[in-house]
Amino acid sequence: MNGRGVITQICIIGAGPAGLLLGHLLRAEGIDCVVLERHTPDYVLGRIRAGVLERVTVDLMERLGLDARLKAEGLVHDGFNLTDGERLIRIDIAGLTGQHVTVYGQTELTRDLMDARHGRGLEVVYEAADVALHDIESDAPFVTYLKDGVQHRVDARIIVGCDGFHGPSRKAIPVSVGKEYEREYPFGWLGILADVPPCNHELIYANHARGFALASQRSETRSRYYIDVPLTERVEDWPDERIWDELAIRLGPQAAAHITRGPSIEKSIAPLRSYVFAPMRHGSLLLCGDAAHIVPPTGAKGLNLAASDVHYAAEALTAFFRRGDNDAIPAYSDRALARVWKAERFSWSLTRLMHRFPEDGPFERAMQVAELDYIASSRAAQTSIAENYVGLPV
Amino acid sequence: MNGRGVITQICIIGAGPAGLLLGHLLRAEGIDCVVLERHTPDYVLGRIRAGVLERVTVDLMERLGLDARLKAEGLVHDGFNLTDGERLIRIDIAGLTGQHVTVYGQTELTRDLMDARHGRGLEVVYEAADVALHDIESDAPFVTYLKDGVQHRVDARIIVGCDGFHGPSRKAIPVSVGKEYEREYPFGWLGILADVPPCNHELIYANHARGFALASQRSETRSRYYIDVPLTERVEDWPDERIWDELAIRLGPQAAAHITRGPSIEKSIAPLRSYVFAPMRHGSLLLCGDAAHIVPPTGAKGLNLAASDVHYAAEALTAFFRRGDNDAIPAYSDRALARVWKAERFSWSLTRLMHRFPEDGPFERAMQVAELDYIASSRAAQTSIAENYVGLPV
Repeated sequence: MNGRGVITQICIIGAGPAGLLLGHLLRAEGIDCVVLERHTPDYVLGRIRAGVLERVTVDLMERLGLDARLKAEGLVHDGFNLTDGERLIRIDIAGLTGQHVTVYGQTELTRDLMDARHGRGLEVVYEAADVALHDIESDAPFVTYLKDGVQHRVDARIIVGCDGFHGPSRKAIPVSVGKEYEREYPFGWLGILADVPPCNHELIYANHARGFALASQRSETRSRYYIDVPLTERVEDWPDERIWDELAIRLGPQAAAHITRGPSIEKSIAPLRSYVFAPMRHGSLLLCGDAAHIVPPTGAKGLNLAASDVHYAAEALTAFFRRGDNDAIPAYSDRALARVWKAERFSWSLTRLMHRFPEDGPFERAMQVAELDYIASSRAAQTSIAENYVGLPV
Repeated sequence: MNGRGVITQICIIGAGPAGLLLGHLLRAEGIDCVVLERHTPDYVLGRIRAGVLERVTVDLMERLGLDARLKAEGLVHDGFNLTDGERLIRIDIAGLTGQHVTVYGQTELTRDLMDARHGRGLEVVYEAADVALHDIESDAPFVTYLKDGVQHRVDARIIVGCDGFHGPSRKAIPVSVGKEYEREYPFGWLGILADVPPCNHELIYANHARGFALASQRSETRSRYYIDVPLTERVEDWPDERIWDELAIRLGPQAAAHITRGPSIEKSIAPLRSYVFAPMRHGSLLLCGDAAHIVPPTGAKGLNLAASDVHYAAEALTAFFRRGDNDAIPAYSDRALARVWKAERFSWSLTRLMHRFPEDGPFERAMQVAELDYIASSRAAQTSIAENYVGLPV
């Protein structure tokens, strides 16, 4: 086993959407980088994730000239709906903010970025095992990994961790340096993906007396639905029909009338978590996306927050490598966190509004209903939700 | 001891601001009523309560022609402030809503209503002990009480309970008929009243790392300040200087520089509670104000919510007694509760935002700071707070 070495300006760890987006942005600026990914391309594409894109995410794809399929196949949504299981409260995001969101699966966006890597000269090493970060507090950090039984080494000026919550990057930062902010939720989202037309042309978030439900979609022929379940539940206990029955109740009669049932092509239970690690930079290591923070999926902020981190990181790295600006990289963490905290707040507060919590009594339930009543009656409240939903300014 | 009887159309229990306001409104419509009050006039005036009036409250005083002193001495406030102990976030309620609030002590408002009772022919029986409600499910209810050792009886078509949280009215409704929604808070407000000029011309609500504080005022020479303390604290452990010291820290340097210290003329610890009893009518009994619901004092909704109840009750009773409208009284509870729930939500959510809770960890504190950051940056969020603060439409 011989060491093989590469020298580059930036080593990006993780080839999910954050790592690929950043890699393409850096290549577009003529900055050298290498992306290391633990899994195979197919594995990465097989992960089912969110599918509601804010403008910040669409803008990055557009800037890269990689938005052709997104523009052709993505669905423009001008609004979404909240319900307590009876009336629908429509949030007219276009009317209230002049903006919209685009429904386009994270998988599709990742595929577009992946397909463009050869044409754009973006080097991605897949199946890079045992990735480890070294000397991140110095100006000469390096990354080691194992590929096909051979130890490799990448020397870089900067390492960017885009390797998700469980990746090695954040863990490379000494515990004494950072602070963790965390909240776990006492339920998970049981999701079902099916090739059936959606029950509604826009998303519906429901807080029914029986629990949460979300009617979502990936396209006009592929639907994604969720209900919340206790974390003790197992997928095996939820045959498709049981999920469809529950959705029909929780989404309320208006939506239920239009549900098309079909066999699940994916079904899983995901826990919900709020998490922030601060700062998002230590020495020569920057963190982007899930490596630094997790939001509960309510409001679909996860991918978009990764995109805004990447936006700030690309700006900082370009300023440093192209213009020798030594202040840009130290400023990254505060810039990124300012937006992260607001999105964490929105995701947490929408989760709080739309789910039943075990500790909630009749008063807390009444507060949820009162908040939905208030939202239904107030343009200001609707505008506040809408501006968070489309994404606060970058 | 002989029974002495009075026959009237409406018997109002309680001569606080709600009972007196309702009595005057009914007398202005030529409807007969008698108000029974357990305490002496001086005792009622001695209770220190809130002092921020919404338009609904000022409008009722104006309609009664009892607003001369309120207009002369009340302070018009066009805004208020939130702080995390550092920067001040001003909520420009006039700019955002076109409305304002009026700072005028509840004691003063009660005095104005009290002083007018003889001139307006409003009969108030003070020191009416052992008030008891009878036959409320019938069309011929009556109230008994003891005065100067003599048992009295008031026969009425309708009884209105304006007798506060601890009064007999709500308790007269069978448990099986209503539902209670309740939340207690793990702290109380330690208040200090002092004849010193306020530190700021508008209110300041602070959520400092050490806890909550409120800089409030009754006039340009009388200040009312609060800090939150654990419910286990005793007033005796808080000499004036200790309170002033704590206020100077929690309100932040900007406000602290302008605090004028002085001897307390009143000092007390009040627990915080959210409570709603629904429905607000049963048979021939209507409930108004604290008899039906309690809000935590954050946002100063208590008196104003009593005023909106009184507004709806006066409308319903006038429709019934003057026009024979049999639907008006049954509709009272739903009309009143729609506004009550929204004010309960606002009071609860502002309490949640501005206090530290024992169960809160670093994540929850970060969410408070993030919400204040978001409010500071969003006109929609400020408008939402402002429209609730000035009072939602009646």
